[in-house]
Amino acid sequence: MLGVLGGMGPMATVDFMGKVVRNTPAARDQDHLQMVVCSAANIPDRTAAILGEGPDPLPAMVDALRRLEAAGVTCVAIPCNTAHHWHAALQAMTPVRVLHIVDAVAEMLTESDGGGLGVLATSGTVEAGIYQERLAHRGITCRMPDAAGQAEVMRAIRLVKAGQLAEATEILRAQAMALVSTGCRQVVMACTEIPVALAAEEGALRTVLVDATEALARACVRTCMASAHDSATSLAA
Amino acid sequence: MLGVLGGMGPMATVDFMGKVVRNTPAARDQDHLQMVVCSAANIPDRTAAILGEGPDPLPAMVDALRRLEAAGVTCVAIPCNTAHHWHAALQAMTPVRVLHIVDAVAEMLTESDGGGLGVLATSGTVEAGIYQERLAHRGITCRMPDAAGQAEVMRAIRLVKAGQLAEATEILRAQAMALVSTGCRQVVMACTEIPVALAAEEGALRTVLVDATEALARACVRTCMASAHDSATSLAA
Repeated sequence: MLGVLGGMGPMATVDFMGKVVRNTPAARDQDHLQMVVCSAANIPDRTAAILGEGPDPLPAMVDALRRLEAAGVTCVAIPCNTAHHWHAALQAMTPVRVLHIVDAVAEMLTESDGGGLGVLATSGTVEAGIYQERLAHRGITCRMPDAAGQAEVMRAIRLVKAGQLAEATEILRAQAMALVSTGCRQVVMACTEIPVALAAEEGALRTVLVDATEALARACVRTCMASAHDSATSLAA
Repeated sequence: MLGVLGGMGPMATVDFMGKVVRNTPAARDQDHLQMVVCSAANIPDRTAAILGEGPDPLPAMVDALRRLEAAGVTCVAIPCNTAHHWHAALQAMTPVRVLHIVDAVAEMLTESDGGGLGVLATSGTVEAGIYQERLAHRGITCRMPDAAGQAEVMRAIRLVKAGQLAEATEILRAQAMALVSTGCRQVVMACTEIPVALAAEEGALRTVLVDATEALARACVRTCMASAHDSATSLAA
């Protein structure tokens, strides 16, 4: 049973769940994955914590993890890129496998990154090096907006959290285009609020954008379907 | 903390969660309700059980309820109209309040029902009298499609569960219009799959349709915000 440590933000968690459902081959309810989702909106701001400007979110994340464990989950996904700064700490506290969103993104990349992989993320994700460090092991170099652009990305993310999508969409489209103009052939929407704002994007950008939320959803479906198959096999044995 | 006994179907649960988030006054993550959602897609078909054609879904619903209790919820919503046939049985098994979707719908009705209230629902919901009995206590008469129309509604609901929205939308629009033509001034989308198919409805029907999922989401926000206020008051006392 898939566990979702969510609520960061709440609408991004809803977006993620929809992507899990749409990526599951199913003709009726009973073909779908079982999920328990903890939408722990109380978890303190992750970027503020990484920048040394706010309280540690780890205790509230651990509380949500414990609720998921109590509910019986066997695998956990966290639809918040910035929260992955605490991935190793959370994994060390539980026997349940915690998927990593950057590994899921790496599985989805199709282009070689001659121009570097564009990354639109929170300032916390950028500062903590969540994408840079994990992708360096795969020989992939990340490219982020300059300081002014990064501040704009962060402003757009806060607008999505406050439900003001139209302005956020304009900002994010411009920042993605700026990364493309520096030579990036793929740009990761590496904050789960960003695909909420760019969901209706139909232009040339559409083929460039890589949706980290979609990548994590597909990884969950693969993992849970494989373990369902393993269970069926071991029952048959 | 709100508990959602969901997965009936999985996309309807996602739709419901989005409506809870959008109905919550919030400028940042931490303003949102905490939720635990059990998307128990394994729960057997509710309509089949009511019609005597399938296994009892109650044991699987109780299992999901126990997982929600273990996770610490203080109030439960069930985003599946047909599942409310077992509402009293579930409420009798838990000290946690289980909201009733028909009461939530009754709160949202604006028109007097001279022509009867139209109800588009599963054949299980209709057969079990879930809307008819509960609304009769409020002096409201329900009007459903005829047998051929009801079979069409049921076919559309199965199409939504299989992800085939376009055909479902056409069928449901036609059946809603048929109820309007018999004199109904409001038509309840009384199966949580139906608003998924009619989400983009923009025509004259839009003002006629009452979304039971939206009604339940608003009732959850009201209930959980009131109990948060009570907690704050008792802490201050």
